[in-house]
Amino acid sequence: MSQPTSPRTRLRPDQRRAQLLDLGVGLLATRSLDELTIDLLAEEAGISRGLLYHYFGNKHAFHEAVVRRAVDDLVEQTAPPAGGEPLDRLLASMSAYVDYVAANHEGYTSILKAAQGGNEALRGLYDEALASLTDRIFTEDAQGELIADTPAARMVVRAWAAMVEQLVLGWVEDPTTMTRDQLLATVTGSLPAVVSLG
Amino acid sequence: MSQPTSPRTRLRPDQRRAQLLDLGVGLLATRSLDELTIDLLAEEAGISRGLLYHYFGNKHAFHEAVVRRAVDDLVEQTAPPAGGEPLDRLLASMSAYVDYVAANHEGYTSILKAAQGGNEALRGLYDEALASLTDRIFTEDAQGELIADTPAARMVVRAWAAMVEQLVLGWVEDPTTMTRDQLLATVTGSLPAVVSLG
Repeated sequence: MSQPTSPRTRLRPDQRRAQLLDLGVGLLATRSLDELTIDLLAEEAGISRGLLYHYFGNKHAFHEAVVRRAVDDLVEQTAPPAGGEPLDRLLASMSAYVDYVAANHEGYTSILKAAQGGNEALRGLYDEALASLTDRIFTEDAQGELIADTPAARMVVRAWAAMVEQLVLGWVEDPTTMTRDQLLATVTGSLPAVVSLG
Repeated sequence: MSQPTSPRTRLRPDQRRAQLLDLGVGLLATRSLDELTIDLLAEEAGISRGLLYHYFGNKHAFHEAVVRRAVDDLVEQTAPPAGGEPLDRLLASMSAYVDYVAANHEGYTSILKAAQGGNEALRGLYDEALASLTDRIFTEDAQGELIADTPAARMVVRAWAAMVEQLVLGWVEDPTTMTRDQLLATVTGSLPAVVSLG
């Protein structure tokens, strides 16, 4: 990384692969997994299908690599800010989640469908992401200011996450039902509210 | 229905079909859809596979008929009592739902998986059931004592139902996480709590 490089010819293989994954993730935002073909990526990247197979092996491995990258992006983009009140930090995280789902709706719903529909590799990636996002609620709130870390609270947070996903997807599909602020107040405020009921 | 009939020989075809469906629903309680084969039903009913094909056409139609009957049972068994406070009636309905999921766990999860996994007929039945159960929240509370009927509340109730399903399935799979009363307090109390946040 000591000198600027030509984007087309000077990249190392791992850098080129990462660049192609970025391109794939970008294409997935507004397309379903089924539409994200090796042909499309080859055309968009201006390289041969053969070279893509060289990097990713086959279509399934390509899809897995793209989804793994998309999941990493989601977890990273929704990380709460370092400081502040627990509920404000959760609100910031939820706000970023809403933005992510809005910007990547096609890809998000197609990954969800594939994960639920028996694609074991994508199911594993989806479950990993869900575990990261819900575990983070507890690690980010290690003092238990918002919710105490108990098996019951862990189970409720998993269920709350299902509600949040459904509500945010519903809102992105029809944003006239409530304002973005109402949505954020609902998904954020519901966490302590629901956990406190048990 | 004017006289008692022998259960094996005097039933009309529609009665015999209904009886076979009852048997299928009962078998599905502790088995997945995949395990609910025409062979199994034939063996349990003591009749020929040929006769079962005569009643149901093929395995998919048989599964659809059984799931339709199971869904009708679920909606009927979880109907709230006629009188009482709205929250008490919801509690009674949720209590029946918990019992239903506990008694029919294998079949319930396999129907859910099939519906999510792209079986369009079962998806349709699942969506119908979900719509019946969530619409009923509003028709049973026509005065809006518990929640006012707005597009936002409808969307939140759909998302709340996803949380309830996830939480009840999680609890049935590991009932040590909280007491049944804690579960019921959470799923019931969360409805007005979450709707009020938006």
